[in-house]
Amino acid sequence: MQAIIKQGVAAKAAASRLMTCSSKSKNDALTAIADALIANKQTILDANALDMRNARENGMTEALLDRLMLDSARIDAIAKGIMEVVSQYDPIGQVEKMQVRPNGLMIGRKTVPLGVIAIIYEARPNVTVDAAILCLKAGNAVILRGGKEAFNSNNAFTEIMRSAISKAGLPEDSVSLVQDTSRESVDALFNLTDYVDVLIPRGGAGLIRHVSLNSKVPIIETGVGNCHIYVAETADLAMAAKIVFNGKCRRPSVCNATETLLVDRAVAEAFLPMAKELLDTKKTELRGCAETVKILGDCVTPASDDDYYTEFLDYILAVKVVAGIDEAIAHISKYGSKHSESIVTNDYTASQRFLNEVDAAAVYVNAPTAFTDGGEFGLGAEIGISTQKMHARGPMGLDQLTSTKFIIYGNGQIRG
Amino acid sequence: MQAIIKQGVAAKAAASRLMTCSSKSKNDALTAIADALIANKQTILDANALDMRNARENGMTEALLDRLMLDSARIDAIAKGIMEVVSQYDPIGQVEKMQVRPNGLMIGRKTVPLGVIAIIYEARPNVTVDAAILCLKAGNAVILRGGKEAFNSNNAFTEIMRSAISKAGLPEDSVSLVQDTSRESVDALFNLTDYVDVLIPRGGAGLIRHVSLNSKVPIIETGVGNCHIYVAETADLAMAAKIVFNGKCRRPSVCNATETLLVDRAVAEAFLPMAKELLDTKKTELRGCAETVKILGDCVTPASDDDYYTEFLDYILAVKVVAGIDEAIAHISKYGSKHSESIVTNDYTASQRFLNEVDAAAVYVNAPTAFTDGGEFGLGAEIGISTQKMHARGPMGLDQLTSTKFIIYGNGQIRG
Repeated sequence: MQAIIKQGVAAKAAASRLMTCSSKSKNDALTAIADALIANKQTILDANALDMRNARENGMTEALLDRLMLDSARIDAIAKGIMEVVSQYDPIGQVEKMQVRPNGLMIGRKTVPLGVIAIIYEARPNVTVDAAILCLKAGNAVILRGGKEAFNSNNAFTEIMRSAISKAGLPEDSVSLVQDTSRESVDALFNLTDYVDVLIPRGGAGLIRHVSLNSKVPIIETGVGNCHIYVAETADLAMAAKIVFNGKCRRPSVCNATETLLVDRAVAEAFLPMAKELLDTKKTELRGCAETVKILGDCVTPASDDDYYTEFLDYILAVKVVAGIDEAIAHISKYGSKHSESIVTNDYTASQRFLNEVDAAAVYVNAPTAFTDGGEFGLGAEIGISTQKMHARGPMGLDQLTSTKFIIYGNGQIRG
Repeated sequence: MQAIIKQGVAAKAAASRLMTCSSKSKNDALTAIADALIANKQTILDANALDMRNARENGMTEALLDRLMLDSARIDAIAKGIMEVVSQYDPIGQVEKMQVRPNGLMIGRKTVPLGVIAIIYEARPNVTVDAAILCLKAGNAVILRGGKEAFNSNNAFTEIMRSAISKAGLPEDSVSLVQDTSRESVDALFNLTDYVDVLIPRGGAGLIRHVSLNSKVPIIETGVGNCHIYVAETADLAMAAKIVFNGKCRRPSVCNATETLLVDRAVAEAFLPMAKELLDTKKTELRGCAETVKILGDCVTPASDDDYYTEFLDYILAVKVVAGIDEAIAHISKYGSKHSESIVTNDYTASQRFLNEVDAAAVYVNAPTAFTDGGEFGLGAEIGISTQKMHARGPMGLDQLTSTKFIIYGNGQIRG
């Protein structure tokens, strides 16, 4: 894959220039990109029309077609999103914990860019711009490897961005798109250890697993979410029903959607019909344990063990009646993916135990898992939701696209 | 490798208990370990004598034998080091940036343990204790894979630690030693993605490269240091000579030792003889560029391009005369390992340029690279020096052995 190696070399050279460029020059480039997207809207729409036609011919589902589709309003929204990133603070060059050591050395830790970030993603073309903008703002060069279904749209976006960046005086190779959309190009990225500092896969569980098991480049895993809500004995049941409904049905296709409802036995009989009433408004299929079936009747599909491991990403909810918080936490520990977990309770001790003992990127009391998102958490735009423990965990904003270096001011100190 | 998988399962179960245990119970366990090491000193010395005898029979060099050797004073020092870690603050449970969002959700980021950490290291048996103690203090379980030369010493240390931990009421599987010291056991650790959260290789460049290219478990690279000192035109030359001598000769075998001296052409003729005079006191071999040879004469070995890439870890120093700071930074960028880099200068602009433009874990003005160390940087004990950009960079103390989770307090908020 000579082409991808060349791209790596070019990105590394660009990253070296971005490392020291000012906030103003980065913001100028971002603003130029926003302007260029508006000015070249028709080029983007034409490219997207081609992708849409191909996708329809290949029988893409309506839901996926909607994710692929661009129109004038969506491009405006993307440009507006860029200007929001422009208005965020620059995460680079912040010096933390500067201290004077007993020998007079002054030592601090300064935020610096990661370098070159490669991102592998699937069908949504807006990710091409969103990801590039966040990487650039944090002083990183980015190599984009989008899905083949969106190639023409991604390529149009990338060409417009490169031209705008170059006109703004920064290296155009700060952003580049992998031109080969075969599986081989993903695998080629795995070996670019000399040029790529971090690889971020965004997409389905299959892609993420393939990347995490094969990449030699350090990765940040994102996305897989098998999230639970546990309704405890002391829960406000009306509130709990709304939380479960929002967790499951707000957007079932995203990683923070709730996949399993755990209900305390003491309130199962009262609560399950209340939850069902709301879930029925979205025709949500319930897959329940024997007790759930007993309470709600034959409308519930008996759940298999596999159901509790499954990220449905659909209007399907697994349900299990549990004896109490110990069984709830044990279930989450066994079946969960350490993404987002929630307890609905009015018991102080239970709330604290859940927060402390559940091991996940985001742990909630009395709110749906649906809130796990960079914007909702106040981080600004997000590049993804990390489900690993190293480097970054949970929604990743600009701060998570940085590394650090120690800077040391001396005046001739010698180590004994 | 069924044995290693069993070890992974046991460590994961222990980590789950450690995750929620109090600072007091962790400190009690550490104190129990310190006491047990003193109480069982003879057992450790006997095991070490066995390792020493085997090593001598296998022709180990005196330098390595010294690293392997334990005596009563060294065990006392290890126990004292444990009590210093006891006195450090607990890095777990710190909540940062707790904020109330416009919808009333209260969201903060809390430090939590990484989980299970595996450490692969070579001949020094004290690492067995140092690494285990730091991992435990940060609430992590640890799987140790030491070198075969130190196996008996490592095993004695581990058995004493496990027994002390268990008596203190924490799970003995918080610490375990891989019993198989063949290469296969290193490779087996690479696949323990279900049980090990982070793998840290400590050792020579060969080991680290092997781990980084093959591990499926996320790793933190440590250790390889090809460090430079650049003596600029405006440097105080007497100070510079002392800094270079300290950088090279304090302990040539460690990763923060200086391997290449870069000298500005304007001061090369005055400076190189001053540096040589000090370096000669340790019979340091100089490998220089043509200009260096011209200035210092035939005592200098002509340097090959390879010399500039080499981490000598010995009394050998590569030397190059450069035209100025641009060439110095370009040389470091090409040949360096991004570990520690230093400039000696009295020019303000040069100092700032060097700090900003050199991409390394630690960048110095007017001090030797030898200071790159957790203790010297005020981090307390260190588990290693990261040379990667993800998660942690530079000396890693307790804070770098943690992850985070978002905790969210709600009262029935629903996402729109």
